Amino acid sequence: MADKAITINDMATFCKKKGFVFPNSEMYGGFSGFFDYGPLGVEVKNNIKQSWWKRFVKSREDVFGIDGSIISHPKVWKASGHVDCFSDKMIYCNKHKKSFRADQLIEDVVGKPADGLSKKQLLAEISIHSEKFKKAGYDLAQDISDFNLMFRTFVGSSQSEDAVAYLRPETAQLIFADFKAVCDTSRAKLPFGIAQIGKAFRNEISPRDFLFRTREFEQMEIEYFIHPEMKECSLLTNRDFSFNILTAKHQKQGKEHGQMSAAQMLSFGLADEWHVYWLLEQYKWFLDMGIAPLSLRLREHLKDELAHYSSACFDIEYKFPFGWKEIHGSANRGQFDLTQHKRYSKENLELFDEESKQKVIPRVIEPSQGVDRAFLAFLFDAYHDDSERGNVVLRLHPALAPIKVGVFPLVNKLREKSREIFDPLKEEFECFFDASGSIGRRYARADEQGIAYCVTVDFETLDDASVTVRDRDTTAQVRVKIGDIADTLSKLLSGKVAFSDAGKAV
Amino acid sequence: MADKAITINDMATFCKKKGFVFPNSEMYGGFSGFFDYGPLGVEVKNNIKQSWWKRFVKSREDVFGIDGSIISHPKVWKASGHVDCFSDKMIYCNKHKKSFRADQLIEDVVGKPADGLSKKQLLAEISIHSEKFKKAGYDLAQDISDFNLMFRTFVGSSQSEDAVAYLRPETAQLIFADFKAVCDTSRAKLPFGIAQIGKAFRNEISPRDFLFRTREFEQMEIEYFIHPEMKECSLLTNRDFSFNILTAKHQKQGKEHGQMSAAQMLSFGLADEWHVYWLLEQYKWFLDMGIAPLSLRLREHLKDELAHYSSACFDIEYKFPFGWKEIHGSANRGQFDLTQHKRYSKENLELFDEESKQKVIPRVIEPSQGVDRAFLAFLFDAYHDDSERGNVVLRLHPALAPIKVGVFPLVNKLREKSREIFDPLKEEFECFFDASGSIGRRYARADEQGIAYCVTVDFETLDDASVTVRDRDTTAQVRVKIGDIADTLSKLLSGKVAFSDAGKAV
Repeated sequence: MADKAITINDMATFCKKKGFVFPNSEMYGGFSGFFDYGPLGVEVKNNIKQSWWKRFVKSREDVFGIDGSIISHPKVWKASGHVDCFSDKMIYCNKHKKSFRADQLIEDVVGKPADGLSKKQLLAEISIHSEKFKKAGYDLAQDISDFNLMFRTFVGSSQSEDAVAYLRPETAQLIFADFKAVCDTSRAKLPFGIAQIGKAFRNEISPRDFLFRTREFEQMEIEYFIHPEMKECSLLTNRDFSFNILTAKHQKQGKEHGQMSAAQMLSFGLADEWHVYWLLEQYKWFLDMGIAPLSLRLREHLKDELAHYSSACFDIEYKFPFGWKEIHGSANRGQFDLTQHKRYSKENLELFDEESKQKVIPRVIEPSQGVDRAFLAFLFDAYHDDSERGNVVLRLHPALAPIKVGVFPLVNKLREKSREIFDPLKEEFECFFDASGSIGRRYARADEQGIAYCVTVDFETLDDASVTVRDRDTTAQVRVKIGDIADTLSKLLSGKVAFSDAGKAV
Repeated sequence: MADKAITINDMATFCKKKGFVFPNSEMYGGFSGFFDYGPLGVEVKNNIKQSWWKRFVKSREDVFGIDGSIISHPKVWKASGHVDCFSDKMIYCNKHKKSFRADQLIEDVVGKPADGLSKKQLLAEISIHSEKFKKAGYDLAQDISDFNLMFRTFVGSSQSEDAVAYLRPETAQLIFADFKAVCDTSRAKLPFGIAQIGKAFRNEISPRDFLFRTREFEQMEIEYFIHPEMKECSLLTNRDFSFNILTAKHQKQGKEHGQMSAAQMLSFGLADEWHVYWLLEQYKWFLDMGIAPLSLRLREHLKDELAHYSSACFDIEYKFPFGWKEIHGSANRGQFDLTQHKRYSKENLELFDEESKQKVIPRVIEPSQGVDRAFLAFLFDAYHDDSERGNVVLRLHPALAPIKVGVFPLVNKLREKSREIFDPLKEEFECFFDASGSIGRRYARADEQGIAYCVTVDFETLDDASVTVRDRDTTAQVRVKIGDIADTLSKLLSGKVAFSDAGKAV
């Protein structure tokens, strides 16, 4: 079995062809930075969200969910700093008669990452490489301007400045804005978290890399609130857990990433216990949902990358064909946000902590997950162009597979019998009935859709009341009694039984 | 047991107090027309969406899901008619120095519904009742202007007119815009549907009635595509099904609603077979999810209420304390939308129909469901102020209940034993552990949160390895073995066993 790496464009083509993701408004020439999830994609995306929500909200007693609105009072974004600071650095080109994002332009023309550089540093880079820019057909201005990334709109009948509101550029601030309401109604006691899944919007100047940098995207975020003096994390029990990690030191020395246990991260002072705990939980979610361990790593932010509110920040990165890229961000936000909102709203956001008998502004650890980036990582990780089979196999974790079970009559004559088996299964699992084309063609189609198990009804079924179940990843087959099929599939899908023990080997 | 009707404001207060729904940005004085779902509300809302999606998408072979973007190419909204026609009729008041929605102003001041009236009719009403308006403190202008309800924004670095884009005012058009992509990738054959759940936005001038008329809301919509000459609906098998219905004729004659079977609706020519089929399916979903049959009815739109694209339209209405109000709209849109998009995009949106061997533009039936309105109807229907118990009981269908099971140690001494029972349950169901306050107080709290079943661990538990399970709606109790508890709860929650058969009566 040979795997070929595919490009991001190949993946976009595959996703469109198979009904996972369509470019938005394609019949009107497309609309850059916007995508629609198709019939298979919406199921994978929902599965990702539900898996995350079950694990980090529903199964926990210390995390409370909310679902806040996309448009909020503009003061929320004033207090958060987004109105004043959430901008990209733009440079005007006299030849193209338009502005470009300076860091991306340097990356494209010079081939050197420039993310997070200051205006001065960006202009210096451009000056050093001025010949390259000239050659590439740019005539750049001598100054760099700020472009706020928030989409603006007007709420109410007036179109004046005091009617301006913003589409949220992140879900996090809604959590801070509802912090008091959640505390008042949920009997939450420190430490606890508030979680949210929902859309966010950024007016990216150059959307790129398919779902990786879009203008409309979805986030899954937790703000976890901790007593400011609480250092120990009793939930961090798995201290031997080993991360792939690219530290700031690695980066400065130009080294590859290495391995480090949670305990080592702590002893080297890379992050505090609660921060390491949440990195571990989120990192492990990716592994448990099937991501290959070698394709995942932590990357410590360099000091000059850190946002003003953050004392430490790590990304979880996935090894895409276009390089290691952030799919999750985890920041130690300290007391910044609650303090800001307290100042702007004049609300008392202090919490009375029963244990310390003190009123405190909690500090915050923020695990922030992009849904679309998770989707992209899961799809790349699952994608295998299997040269032996002659088709793509999408080896998604059963919990993420858009369709769990395919039911196929070997020939059309067996259609009625197959429907008898299919109909009750359809009530229980996401099922797909397919009677068109050769059985080989149907298996290939199922592989490409990521269908976890195929159930084939053949002539023997009429005699022995059994069907063949095929495993997508290995093509191994077992024979299972019709009466046991729902139970067997349920056990296979939840990982409670190994495939080889699921029936009689074929 | 006496039930008191509560007002919409009471419901808003209850929802805030219990953590179902918070006014958005309350710490900045609120933001009219925007709400955030709290810890309990987000679970109920998710349960509503998942119930609908499972029933109308996942369990069906003829409906395909999508998840389209909120911002699309502006031509989508030009083709749909929203840029030119999606507006409210506004009238300016010289005293208030602002504009009002004319129909709502008439309703408020004259006390007469004015929804759907033309500009001329609105001015006539205002003229007839001019004394009333004067008395109420209005000095109205003599003309009425149009105010487009779509929120506008700018995409890209320019703020010029050709960079204008809109937040979608409905999810429906995304389905039409992706129609071809879904057909090309899903082997869909007529008749089939495309479904979507997602947010939509309308810049309502006067948001009102809590979640009923907001500026940001969520929809669950299906566009069901049918061969234009296909009249019979083989899926409509339940023709004796009886609706409460307020026909156009009832309304003209000032009569109350009556009852009518699906077959009668057809024989009176009120709607075609496919339209009746979808009305029935959606109406029945509400009943199956627990809505009281007497609180639900169909209302046929009057001829002059019909939108330009629609040949027949029905609402499903719920009997709120503030009157019968639309919670679902079901329109026969004919070929309008696909024809429009075909004209504007120049794309060929004809589908080759295998059976008739013809290329056709399908006709469309559109079941359109507001998620927030469904939420509101379910909450009002479930709300019972139980004077005997002295607390509110939220009798939500178990599938919609935000928390399925509460686990309570009778006294603190039994905490450890209770945690042993709680921990594995938590993996399987949404569970809540509560050890604070008297057991009576905890039951009352659970009733108000809509927790379906309470499990109490008492001293006998240590002897007989059994616990008491309490039914929220009746307060009946049964005794169940600890080893059977997960299985019993699972059967109770899915309705597979009656409460009285779930254990030994207490």
